[in-house]
Amino acid sequence: MQKIAVLTSGGDAPGMNAAVRAAVRRAAYYGIQMYGVYHGYEGLMYGDIQEMTLGSVGDIIHRGGTILYSARSEEFKTETGQQKAIDQLNRRGIEGLIVIGGDGSFRGAQKISEKGIRTIGVPGTIDNDIPCTDFTIGFDTALNTVVDAIDKIRDTATSHERTYIIEVMGRDAGDLALWAGLAAGAESILIPEVDNDMRDIVERLEAGHRRGKKHTIIIVAEGVGSASHYAEEIKKLTGLETRVTVLGHIQRGGSPTAFDRMLASRMGAAAVDLLLEGKRDRMVGIRNNEIVDVDFQEALSQKHHLDLSIYQLARTLSI
Amino acid sequence: MQKIAVLTSGGDAPGMNAAVRAAVRRAAYYGIQMYGVYHGYEGLMYGDIQEMTLGSVGDIIHRGGTILYSARSEEFKTETGQQKAIDQLNRRGIEGLIVIGGDGSFRGAQKISEKGIRTIGVPGTIDNDIPCTDFTIGFDTALNTVVDAIDKIRDTATSHERTYIIEVMGRDAGDLALWAGLAAGAESILIPEVDNDMRDIVERLEAGHRRGKKHTIIIVAEGVGSASHYAEEIKKLTGLETRVTVLGHIQRGGSPTAFDRMLASRMGAAAVDLLLEGKRDRMVGIRNNEIVDVDFQEALSQKHHLDLSIYQLARTLSI
Amino acid sequence: MQKIAVLTSGGDAPGMNAAVRAAVRRAAYYGIQMYGVYHGYEGLMYGDIQEMTLGSVGDIIHRGGTILYSARSEEFKTETGQQKAIDQLNRRGIEGLIVIGGDGSFRGAQKISEKGIRTIGVPGTIDNDIPCTDFTIGFDTALNTVVDAIDKIRDTATSHERTYIIEVMGRDAGDLALWAGLAAGAESILIPEVDNDMRDIVERLEAGHRRGKKHTIIIVAEGVGSASHYAEEIKKLTGLETRVTVLGHIQRGGSPTAFDRMLASRMGAAAVDLLLEGKRDRMVGIRNNEIVDVDFQEALSQKHHLDLSIYQLARTLSI
Amino acid sequence: MQKIAVLTSGGDAPGMNAAVRAAVRRAAYYGIQMYGVYHGYEGLMYGDIQEMTLGSVGDIIHRGGTILYSARSEEFKTETGQQKAIDQLNRRGIEGLIVIGGDGSFRGAQKISEKGIRTIGVPGTIDNDIPCTDFTIGFDTALNTVVDAIDKIRDTATSHERTYIIEVMGRDAGDLALWAGLAAGAESILIPEVDNDMRDIVERLEAGHRRGKKHTIIIVAEGVGSASHYAEEIKKLTGLETRVTVLGHIQRGGSPTAFDRMLASRMGAAAVDLLLEGKRDRMVGIRNNEIVDVDFQEALSQKHHLDLSIYQLARTLSI
Repeated sequence: MQKIAVLTSGGDAPGMNAAVRAAVRRAAYYGIQMYGVYHGYEGLMYGDIQEMTLGSVGDIIHRGGTILYSARSEEFKTETGQQKAIDQLNRRGIEGLIVIGGDGSFRGAQKISEKGIRTIGVPGTIDNDIPCTDFTIGFDTALNTVVDAIDKIRDTATSHERTYIIEVMGRDAGDLALWAGLAAGAESILIPEVDNDMRDIVERLEAGHRRGKKHTIIIVAEGVGSASHYAEEIKKLTGLETRVTVLGHIQRGGSPTAFDRMLASRMGAAAVDLLLEGKRDRMVGIRNNEIVDVDFQEALSQKHHLDLSIYQLARTLSI
Repeated sequence: MQKIAVLTSGGDAPGMNAAVRAAVRRAAYYGIQMYGVYHGYEGLMYGDIQEMTLGSVGDIIHRGGTILYSARSEEFKTETGQQKAIDQLNRRGIEGLIVIGGDGSFRGAQKISEKGIRTIGVPGTIDNDIPCTDFTIGFDTALNTVVDAIDKIRDTATSHERTYIIEVMGRDAGDLALWAGLAAGAESILIPEVDNDMRDIVERLEAGHRRGKKHTIIIVAEGVGSASHYAEEIKKLTGLETRVTVLGHIQRGGSPTAFDRMLASRMGAAAVDLLLEGKRDRMVGIRNNEIVDVDFQEALSQKHHLDLSIYQLARTLSI
Repeated sequence: MQKIAVLTSGGDAPGMNAAVRAAVRRAAYYGIQMYGVYHGYEGLMYGDIQEMTLGSVGDIIHRGGTILYSARSEEFKTETGQQKAIDQLNRRGIEGLIVIGGDGSFRGAQKISEKGIRTIGVPGTIDNDIPCTDFTIGFDTALNTVVDAIDKIRDTATSHERTYIIEVMGRDAGDLALWAGLAAGAESILIPEVDNDMRDIVERLEAGHRRGKKHTIIIVAEGVGSASHYAEEIKKLTGLETRVTVLGHIQRGGSPTAFDRMLASRMGAAAVDLLLEGKRDRMVGIRNNEIVDVDFQEALSQKHHLDLSIYQLARTLSI
Repeated sequence: MQKIAVLTSGGDAPGMNAAVRAAVRRAAYYGIQMYGVYHGYEGLMYGDIQEMTLGSVGDIIHRGGTILYSARSEEFKTETGQQKAIDQLNRRGIEGLIVIGGDGSFRGAQKISEKGIRTIGVPGTIDNDIPCTDFTIGFDTALNTVVDAIDKIRDTATSHERTYIIEVMGRDAGDLALWAGLAAGAESILIPEVDNDMRDIVERLEAGHRRGKKHTIIIVAEGVGSASHYAEEIKKLTGLETRVTVLGHIQRGGSPTAFDRMLASRMGAAAVDLLLEGKRDRMVGIRNNEIVDVDFQEALSQKHHLDLSIYQLARTLSI
């Protein structure tokens, strides 16, 4: 294997650049030529591909977003689109492809692999919703962004003694909401992995008020519905006016934390190592602090697992 | 004058604690007893008032929110409510009151003053919408919070080559939106002080695209309407899908910046000085880097002025 | 067990407050009375001990330092001192003690345990130098502080094309230096766990220069000597002038990261659980993302282990 | 005037990139061709000069350091060196030069001006030590960096009840130390503009201890000597052990604050405007929130003025 390529796909996540840097430098270390594919699978189909050198990835380890850009591509979901991508890689003699992204991106990588190019996936998404890995690149940064935002909102919640409902990202996974809620000391955390009973929420709210707690913060994972919905429900059940904040796209950006840079560096390098070992169709992961790799099929057929003991802990600590 | 009191009122702003600290310490320096009124005018009416010492304000200069809490009070708008407040102050022999807040809070302070207690106002609001002062306490912190949020959103806007519309606070004033937009390099800034022509916005958007700009950030001051409204207008006129983020209450919190701590320290101390000089019915301000004081009547009858040359500059730099 | 106490000891670390909060709330959840011991073992000997309620730990999860204070005590190292401590606990009917600190603090806890009070240790130190736990409370925050500092220094290193040597904490452990060096993309990392050959350092420096790299950042763990020493050695061997920065005490402070708040919350709660299970003489740890507990004797007799594969990775990525 | 150039010189400061961006975009707005000179006067002598377009300054407004690099040049201090620089500019038909830097850089700009090329200076330095301007680009960012560092150190100072001495930059000016000391609530601030009597420092320290203050933070401007020196003096006079931190080069880096981006944008644009108005030999400044321009001769012959009322305020508030 003399030439490999790397692309980023799906929602961007802080640390993707650190992963690209690690892949490029690891390849250079082994004397392999690395190519950067711009704009994800769309760019792959249309040959938006350039050679990358050590200099291409200088001074990017600390930058949010992705220097390779990301894009959605409907065309790539078709047989014709996939063949175009293969042709572009073959034309350049590129034998391996590293795909940094989420589960949708890995399904694309499987297609490429079926058509003869070895692919390795690197989990990059703030949602932490990929099975077979404890963490995804970007999760820790998004988590700290959310916690920092809740800390700020608590300043004003405390000053005014009000109830705030904060909606955070995570798609179908509650990790971001749960971890942020525990780390920020939120009074209630609503996540898709558990049954979120409105009566329970209201009881906790009222128990807090009885104990003299005058401000309350409720975290809502986007996977359980909108914060506004819960604000209305609380209003209906208790008459209490709440304030709603939807954190939105700030959660995707920012300079990656040390943890995400480490994770991305380890995973980006490991992806190159796997290609050199002749592996394919596999996703890099981290389990128990060790870098592992699992078959795409296995990873994509499983469900992401949220540690419910954390949820129980959050409940006992937010009394 | 042997006893004075301080309260915070209206929306909280980062730096209010630094102002309280400065007032307490300046008073202590002159051997004056300071009282803290908790929960704004509501607490004033009901005697939620405690003596403050040097220790009461230790380790608070860097904290967001207000240790004195803030609250709205309908009752205080009545003659009866105001008399209750006066009684509470008289009962304790408190002859002067410092009110940290916005224009609504100053109107309350005027009422107190009319009834015989000397009042001095300190402008604390993130909106920078108070006349007769170049800056209000909290504005610089909110500004940096907004700029930091836009920087984060730009990471993802750049990666995905999309258009984002970001709604920021400011009530009827465009300062926060304008300054943040210039400082973050936004492509368009919509503020209440100018005519925001949809055709102009769309033309700038399209001109940018023609020049190869693939991501665009548009800042909308809440005073001109909601970000969603503008997203729909753009969709109608151009077919372009945009992403909307409403920054919300994170803008009120956070540790105050150095500038806000300085401003708050200077203003809080000046308020005590003014009371000792026998002044009343005045608001502290900063003009041309100097601490000044102006009559409440004058301050409240004027309109806050936004520097339009900044707006023109922003337009020439965002081409 | 009806009454337990908690103290912080040794160097403070961000997240200690989150651990105290978790311990207090977990105890309250089980209906156990928690006492806070102020000023570490010194305060324990002299009865600086107060009951803690849910309110005692409100609004502290995000604060650096320790609300219980920390102190060194020579007297506690004596038999007499230890007996004083035991007497204070017995007098109040306190049957269990949670000690948050480093290895020195745990040796103290062992002494208490020998004299009949059950003790549980929680590893809190920015150095990550405690055996039998993957992470200590405070390490992730210090790591991000160091990485942020290196990012700032790189701005100026890049602008001036100079070589900077940055000394970071860690006592005899290289974790902080290694992780920060990798996460910040440092060119060389000097840690006590490996042989740091001056010729190798100089060769890497010169190889970088030959490849056109004009600025270089070298991280020195305090465990291998001072940054100034290495600056002099480099000067001697190459004539190159370098700039030295000793990061110092900023590394101990700051609001804890989400990771440290999570870790501290889990560990603080687990310490209470262990006491309730009748355990003693054990340290809480985290291994492979699971909370574990190990015997003090075992923990203190082992050596902290640094993952050398991270070191190798850093070398291949900093070419 | 059809062609102008811009360079950065001397110590780098956050916001320099925002100034370069503003100059390039303002020039583009007027249809003027802008050139970037790399590596300061050294690059000017040797023709390290490139055309800049709107794209050259995309995505840099928030970056620390300077994309044009900075360097010292002994040769440029000679007549021959200066003539080389003039030749490079003449060869390209460049008629005006914007120099972003400190007073040393402006002396260089005067030389260029004497030889026939119009020069305009923009004050960029974290030290705020330039006369005729209230603020220099980079000061506000450095100030916030220092305040953030002191906040962190206070966490640990509070936990351990110790005395810390922190040395900050500023060359011969005390602005950074004074403003940071006030904003962070330091107990003592030592600056070159006042007489720093050791007895006074010790008395304040001891008075604080008598009042129960157990931790103390003393800020030392580099212009009055080293923090270590003061630590020794305090040891000699009181026997008290203190901890010393020299903040060092982190003070030069970091993403510029909103204020610095605003200031830099206004100043960079103004420099282009002045050249177009036919002005020369002048420095841009900000006085009372208005952009002004003053003759180099006037600016360089005056002394920077520190507002001593701030110093007095700091003393009354740190009791």
